[in-house]
Amino acid sequence: MTALALFEEIKRKQSFLCVGLDTELSKLPPHLLGENFPLFVFNRHIIDATNDLVIAYKPNLAFYECLGAAGWQQLEMTVNYIREKYPEILIIADAKRGDIGNTAAKYAEAFFHNLACDAVTVAPYMGSDSVRPFLGFEGKWVILLALTSNAGADDFQMLSTGIQERLFESVLSKSKQWGNPDNMMYVVGATRASMLVKVRQLVPDHFLLIPGIGAQGGDLNEVAAYGCNSRCGLIVNSSRAILYADNSPRFAEVAREKAREVQQQMHAILVSRSLV
Amino acid sequence: MTALALFEEIKRKQSFLCVGLDTELSKLPPHLLGENFPLFVFNRHIIDATNDLVIAYKPNLAFYECLGAAGWQQLEMTVNYIREKYPEILIIADAKRGDIGNTAAKYAEAFFHNLACDAVTVAPYMGSDSVRPFLGFEGKWVILLALTSNAGADDFQMLSTGIQERLFESVLSKSKQWGNPDNMMYVVGATRASMLVKVRQLVPDHFLLIPGIGAQGGDLNEVAAYGCNSRCGLIVNSSRAILYADNSPRFAEVAREKAREVQQQMHAILVSRSLV
Repeated sequence: MTALALFEEIKRKQSFLCVGLDTELSKLPPHLLGENFPLFVFNRHIIDATNDLVIAYKPNLAFYECLGAAGWQQLEMTVNYIREKYPEILIIADAKRGDIGNTAAKYAEAFFHNLACDAVTVAPYMGSDSVRPFLGFEGKWVILLALTSNAGADDFQMLSTGIQERLFESVLSKSKQWGNPDNMMYVVGATRASMLVKVRQLVPDHFLLIPGIGAQGGDLNEVAAYGCNSRCGLIVNSSRAILYADNSPRFAEVAREKAREVQQQMHAILVSRSLV
Repeated sequence: MTALALFEEIKRKQSFLCVGLDTELSKLPPHLLGENFPLFVFNRHIIDATNDLVIAYKPNLAFYECLGAAGWQQLEMTVNYIREKYPEILIIADAKRGDIGNTAAKYAEAFFHNLACDAVTVAPYMGSDSVRPFLGFEGKWVILLALTSNAGADDFQMLSTGIQERLFESVLSKSKQWGNPDNMMYVVGATRASMLVKVRQLVPDHFLLIPGIGAQGGDLNEVAAYGCNSRCGLIVNSSRAILYADNSPRFAEVAREKAREVQQQMHAILVSRSLV
């Protein structure tokens, strides 16, 4: 998928919402716990209830890996389900991988071939040769960590690495030379919306994946004010606030209501910026 | 395992060798390709042939994940095999994970509970709250990336973050406050042995995991000269040079010969430093 195709989807759905599939056994509605593949069954209900309101799903690998091979199998079932039934929806493997070249190539194989994901989140610490192996796949994306939404982001990402430059800015300015806005995006935490001004100075054209809306406390209007570009340029994620809004057999219906509320806000933002 | 227990193993085996299980289907001896679980069968032969010469095995997650659930299953079989048959050997999940707190806790569960690994490699970019969730497990270790062996390490790890301080040094000096030499180690690439002087100034007591010996070109004597401390303090990894030294039905025997060569060098180093 190109950046332009993604923008077309945003206009069609009047949404730039991503639902994070941080699917946790201990948080599932009790009536699903007898299922053979409870994570997958939960995800399938969530996906069927929300697919017309979202442009992306983002399974978080940790929540599957913690169940071992059985978890990985349910991740595969989830990705295949989205791919077959809703082929227009971007699938982001939230994996935050990062390793030397031959290992990075294996991770790319894991997420782009064995799993039919469209994008994978990657950590920048190991530099260019840990990122480039993900960039050679037609229509696939690297989403590189720039500025994350957690408190620990201050430990290293905010360190000065030059005159009026911090590490996350060095990451942006260097890494944007490795790819282009059709194969790279950046993670920028929504709890730091004012930092989006800095980010947009460095990468005006790239899509940004914004976690931290909902349970993590980010504000959507503020994110849009500082982060939108002429093609929207934002994918905003919400996980727990949508997935776990209800714990009864009505959970998927309530999840849809929550997703719908966010989509309505996004619609208003897109209209106010004359993007739809 | 404590640092002291690890040093006891080093003295007992006269070795500080780790064999990296970067097990790749396309590189296996052809006679194994008909097996149901070829990665596991290969690993089992390597482990049975080398266990008395090594103190650690380090499966690299990418090589299993690229085969999906079937790969993860063979990883589990490998870890369980080592755990049951050679319980004294350290198992390092080379995963280079790094995510916010609740996700990091799930990765810790994946590697320390679901898989019975002793240690996991973690990337520092997201800061303290992405590392601390791994530190609360009795006898388990975080191995934090400090200075890696690839060319891309220059992109960010070598950036100046203060007067006479580079990012990898900031990572060392800050992160050593999060844990202690019994639950943290650091990755330091052997292709930069002279940098070990700087590293040892900052973390004199921690074990260092040194990749980059063998196929990546690092020199063992140089590493020992700059990196050894009073408890050895080194775990030196070799992967491809041992695993793929031979492609015939004799592969495990040849792997043992290669591992034995390295162990003999390590024995000489330990003797020359009066550590055994």
